[in-house]
Amino acid sequence: MSRIETLVNGVLDGDRRALARLITRIENRAPDAPAALAALFPHTGRAYIVGITGAPGTGKSTVVNALARTLRAQDRTVGIVAVDPTSPFSGGAVLGDRIRMTDLAGDRGVFIRSMANRGSLGGLAAATGDVVRALDAAGFDVVLIETVGAGQSEVDIARTAYTTIVVDAPGLGDDVQAIKAGILEIADILVVNKADRPGAENTVRALRATLELGHRLRSAGHHGPLLDQDDAPPEPALDLWDVPILKTVATERSGLDELAGAIERHRAYLSESGLYEERARQRVQAELATRLREELLARLLDERSPAAVAGVIERILARQLDPGSAVRELLNGT
Amino acid sequence: MSRIETLVNGVLDGDRRALARLITRIENRAPDAPAALAALFPHTGRAYIVGITGAPGTGKSTVVNALARTLRAQDRTVGIVAVDPTSPFSGGAVLGDRIRMTDLAGDRGVFIRSMANRGSLGGLAAATGDVVRALDAAGFDVVLIETVGAGQSEVDIARTAYTTIVVDAPGLGDDVQAIKAGILEIADILVVNKADRPGAENTVRALRATLELGHRLRSAGHHGPLLDQDDAPPEPALDLWDVPILKTVATERSGLDELAGAIERHRAYLSESGLYEERARQRVQAELATRLREELLARLLDERSPAAVAGVIERILARQLDPGSAVRELLNGT
Repeated sequence: MSRIETLVNGVLDGDRRALARLITRIENRAPDAPAALAALFPHTGRAYIVGITGAPGTGKSTVVNALARTLRAQDRTVGIVAVDPTSPFSGGAVLGDRIRMTDLAGDRGVFIRSMANRGSLGGLAAATGDVVRALDAAGFDVVLIETVGAGQSEVDIARTAYTTIVVDAPGLGDDVQAIKAGILEIADILVVNKADRPGAENTVRALRATLELGHRLRSAGHHGPLLDQDDAPPEPALDLWDVPILKTVATERSGLDELAGAIERHRAYLSESGLYEERARQRVQAELATRLREELLARLLDERSPAAVAGVIERILARQLDPGSAVRELLNGT
Repeated sequence: MSRIETLVNGVLDGDRRALARLITRIENRAPDAPAALAALFPHTGRAYIVGITGAPGTGKSTVVNALARTLRAQDRTVGIVAVDPTSPFSGGAVLGDRIRMTDLAGDRGVFIRSMANRGSLGGLAAATGDVVRALDAAGFDVVLIETVGAGQSEVDIARTAYTTIVVDAPGLGDDVQAIKAGILEIADILVVNKADRPGAENTVRALRATLELGHRLRSAGHHGPLLDQDDAPPEPALDLWDVPILKTVATERSGLDELAGAIERHRAYLSESGLYEERARQRVQAELATRLREELLARLLDERSPAAVAGVIERILARQLDPGSAVRELLNGT
């Protein structure tokens, strides 16, 4: 048996060390990772993928951990992928795993992996997709993807997950409100965590008002199912799905059964409405677009001489050539 | 005179309506925008570009506005580009402009434009670069780029700006601390805003400790000057540049002269050390990579039949073809 076969069989047999090794190989873009992923691919598609995101300060990591424990109590196995922002002071991701591990320690039905954003967003999105697929092939019933941060990463999560949870909390500043408006669109379920704090009801009301406003403003669907170049965010499922607003106190594991229940209801809704397949299709489209972009650029740069590329850059710096024309020149190979 | 020539001459003559019209055409990817930008390009390169970012809740918009007023008091004209996250509840960007406008109202030496993130990060980065160039050609002495959010957008700002300011504030949660670690790397200047609040000194101390830790951990430079595919962040200028930590109370315009002074010192440092040119080169490289990725994908999709692309997607959904192999198949045109 080849080394890759051993690794693949290990993952399929539920060997945690094989899984950890494969994920490291995915992260490091090891040359044998694509073959392993190709061999595992027919065994994927069974895990239910949930994205969890929200503004800083909302306690979403605690929500993720509490949700994992609730799912475990329902006898479901859980993989967690935590996507951290670029950290120059490396070790952050490892430290994060250790802190989490003490909470869910010794439970072999849980597998946690933190991924640091190593530069390229496209690269990270591709790697996260592959890691989720590895956890899926390894047989985890549910995969939770958590992103720290706000902005584009949330939109990318929405592509990877079937159900997207946006976590909020009372008492965050105005600036956070602005960010929330940007990510509410992708929420299938809204959670107001720290609901024992003053102002929790106000936060619920504000979210409800914003949802209603968004519903009114939003015109008919305009993102087609084609593989588009604009990376249009997935069509929000607001129309028929009534986005629930749940309250949790994750530190006390309060409200988590309701959250797990809402995920189940959303899953059933996706199935019955046909949106499940639609979302799967959108995920595939987005992933292909990201991978093609990276691969096409790599190939182009292989074809062009470094001297030609350097020459173009110098002419731009000398204001002799504008970037738009430079791109056309590099593409045409002149 | 053609319509484009009229527009270009208007921008060069300082006609604000022409500038606004050009920026709208850039944002909408109008077919004549590239020609206008090419004509303006020889007139760019004079503005000093400053990026301002930080975690939500730090009051960075207020810092941006106060800094703009301070620069105006020094008789320098200021362009502001505020990059907002994707907002489904559109009108947010416009509303933001109006709120800002009341603050800097009637001053013809200031031009403010909010840009909503319309889906593609690559598209937004390219559009932001072009808008900054339009402001540069229009003769603004300083261009301030503000991003809301945390994560990849900060890394992208670092590419566009000569001097990057990261804004922090006392009393933000642990979650925010994690994000800060991720963006400290790109800071040339650190600002602790809301410095009249309790805990400001602690925040300064924590930032200093993190900077020192980062300095110790960071090994020798490993990002080469080549056009890389990994989008490695620009080499931090920590080695010789001692990142200052300044305190501001932006609502009271306190500490802003010191901030403007620190920007000037950093500018002089970049010039004298040769890093100014190096950063300009890195910006050009990153911009070319982003534009090439988008353009290459567009061209590939033009070449392949929609039916072929749809067929690949269906085979992935049926688990007959893994995404990695699908990319190779689409690239090879089989």
